Amino acid sequence: MIQIAIMGFGTVGTGVAKVVSENARQIERKLGEPLQVKTILVRHFKDGPYRQLMTDDFTRIEEDDGIRVVVEAIGGVDAAYTYTRRALLAGKHVVTANKQLVAERGCELLELARKKNVSYLFEASVGGGIPVLHPLTQCMAANRIDEVYGILNGTTNYILTRMVRTGAFFSDALREAQAKGYAEADPSADIHGIDAGRKICILADLAFGSQVDPAAVPMEGISKLSLRDVKIAQRAGYRIKLLGRAVRMPGGGRTAYVAPHLIPEENPIASVEDVYNAVMVRGNATGDVMFYGRGAGELPTASACVADVMECLQASPRRDEISWSSDTSGFEDPQELRTRYYFRIEGSLTDAAMAFGQVEVLSEDGETAFLTDPISGRDAARQSGFLNVLACMRVLA
Amino acid sequence: MIQIAIMGFGTVGTGVAKVVSENARQIERKLGEPLQVKTILVRHFKDGPYRQLMTDDFTRIEEDDGIRVVVEAIGGVDAAYTYTRRALLAGKHVVTANKQLVAERGCELLELARKKNVSYLFEASVGGGIPVLHPLTQCMAANRIDEVYGILNGTTNYILTRMVRTGAFFSDALREAQAKGYAEADPSADIHGIDAGRKICILADLAFGSQVDPAAVPMEGISKLSLRDVKIAQRAGYRIKLLGRAVRMPGGGRTAYVAPHLIPEENPIASVEDVYNAVMVRGNATGDVMFYGRGAGELPTASACVADVMECLQASPRRDEISWSSDTSGFEDPQELRTRYYFRIEGSLTDAAMAFGQVEVLSEDGETAFLTDPISGRDAARQSGFLNVLACMRVLA
Repeated sequence: MIQIAIMGFGTVGTGVAKVVSENARQIERKLGEPLQVKTILVRHFKDGPYRQLMTDDFTRIEEDDGIRVVVEAIGGVDAAYTYTRRALLAGKHVVTANKQLVAERGCELLELARKKNVSYLFEASVGGGIPVLHPLTQCMAANRIDEVYGILNGTTNYILTRMVRTGAFFSDALREAQAKGYAEADPSADIHGIDAGRKICILADLAFGSQVDPAAVPMEGISKLSLRDVKIAQRAGYRIKLLGRAVRMPGGGRTAYVAPHLIPEENPIASVEDVYNAVMVRGNATGDVMFYGRGAGELPTASACVADVMECLQASPRRDEISWSSDTSGFEDPQELRTRYYFRIEGSLTDAAMAFGQVEVLSEDGETAFLTDPISGRDAARQSGFLNVLACMRVLA
Repeated sequence: MIQIAIMGFGTVGTGVAKVVSENARQIERKLGEPLQVKTILVRHFKDGPYRQLMTDDFTRIEEDDGIRVVVEAIGGVDAAYTYTRRALLAGKHVVTANKQLVAERGCELLELARKKNVSYLFEASVGGGIPVLHPLTQCMAANRIDEVYGILNGTTNYILTRMVRTGAFFSDALREAQAKGYAEADPSADIHGIDAGRKICILADLAFGSQVDPAAVPMEGISKLSLRDVKIAQRAGYRIKLLGRAVRMPGGGRTAYVAPHLIPEENPIASVEDVYNAVMVRGNATGDVMFYGRGAGELPTASACVADVMECLQASPRRDEISWSSDTSGFEDPQELRTRYYFRIEGSLTDAAMAFGQVEVLSEDGETAFLTDPISGRDAARQSGFLNVLACMRVLA
């Protein structure tokens, strides 16, 4: 009998208890013995089948030598950080889906785990139930990773899908997402690209092996996106998606950012719809590899946590692949990245040509929409300085 | 310095040497020391940069205690099986991309590896450079896997893509694939579904935990596929793809087979084109998860082998997740599986209705093409007995 604790009993915590119970047979077959939730840390006691296991006293977990793995499902940084540290210091493996904590303090917590000879795993923090971090760090370990990009937030992808399919305005699509439970009452972390931003930081940390400071990563959401651009892009064979993107730069540096992009419809990521997520990883040997599935939800996320619990227990004493250096140097402003740009301006084609020389015209009808040749973000801003810009987005090559 | 040997120096073996050399820096950073190819087993010596390392004497590998991992890139069963056994018996980890050997003798070789406390890993045997087997067995370990299906053969997918896009006949598309180097001079293992069949056996072994005997798995290829069906399917919103499919049956049994299917165009696997592969895994907690990328090729396949080499070295002494029971009982004839069926018959709608009752008509123009309600393969065969059947395929739900 292997005993674990769950800290926090919201969506993810409840899901972990459910998966441990519902898939007990599969889990026992693989571990060789049953897995049991022994203690659940909560702030407020709730009635139900798990009432007996609940405590509001963290030392009941910290001081219990019977508990080998702790699932941190508290969320945020403050209490989650404190208890994760103390659990690692107490020699327990810790597993989490907490992207904010991993993006901000992951490097330090991994280092602490290494010193205490235990694991700190967080597959569920990116892509929910979609395996991404393990494949990236293990199965693609013989590659130099040159780029990672993806649809990392289901809420915004749902909103964009509704805008494309039904011609809904952003605000209406957001209300629909909230009514369906896909968007939270306060959806700002999703629609402003912050949730996707934390995930691309974690992907960049693992892909390039050095810490990316979330504060240095520009995060742009979809709140300013106009239905007009969605339609123009679609007619020209593109889809607009909110991408988190991390790129190895030609000079050896690296960059990361979140922003809406025009994506050619032949790219499989262009067809990723509704609340689905997808992550594309470009390795110098494998080429492009894509991971696709539901990026959130109680059971998918929880099942990834439980798989990490099993991984902690099977890897004795711990696995070393998941780590990165705390060195944040070498991070470049994504404005240095050269891509084609989409512009919609109030003005004529002559204005566009005066600013950018030759452009590919997508639409000209009172307003003018066009694609530039590949240029840096800096040049895109400088050259469009005298134009009346209504919309500006990068085009994924 | 960690030393490995390569057995066989064709496409995969050469690729492994290339990846070890080209990505030496990435590999050393992760392993903590350099990786070196020490010995290469060949039948015929070839000139080139690796000439010094070549031998035609297997005992030079078997008896060399400096060699910790052997990459088997011989292919087929005979010599590959013998040398793999002897390498495992000599206490060396073995890594391979050899799907035939794994499908036929994998269970036995895994058991031998377990006894000798070493690893036998074969991520590259399914999907080339696409991570599939590790994610399935590790990251989805907390799931009950209910179904796995995929486009497992790039050659046939390329041919189908050409038929759809350009309206080419099967034979012309095959010649084009051969001219481009995507199909071998003798393409029979590809076009008759045997290559995909070996891969779906391995996926079924790992997904359901019990041996699937390749001889029990019906394998149908695309050689009989008509352009007419491709066009009818497409107009009705379907794509035709050759799928390997493994399903957990309602009664607890399992089945597997390879056959062309009609796939609704909304399913992301319907848009997988050219030589790309994709594998969809359905877990009871994660839902559908898809893995996509180039399923073959020298460097992708080789990089998966090298990642497995690294995995052998990092997991001390070995990892246990990748294994299955030798019990072949519980395998059911895929004819028991209930799906909708596509039929094209020489005859009228009345004939169709007399055979199947209500059907969904796709085309009626001299011939009649239609979809049935979900029925077993047995019933599909029985009820169509008196019809003049020109084409018959399952529809993926």
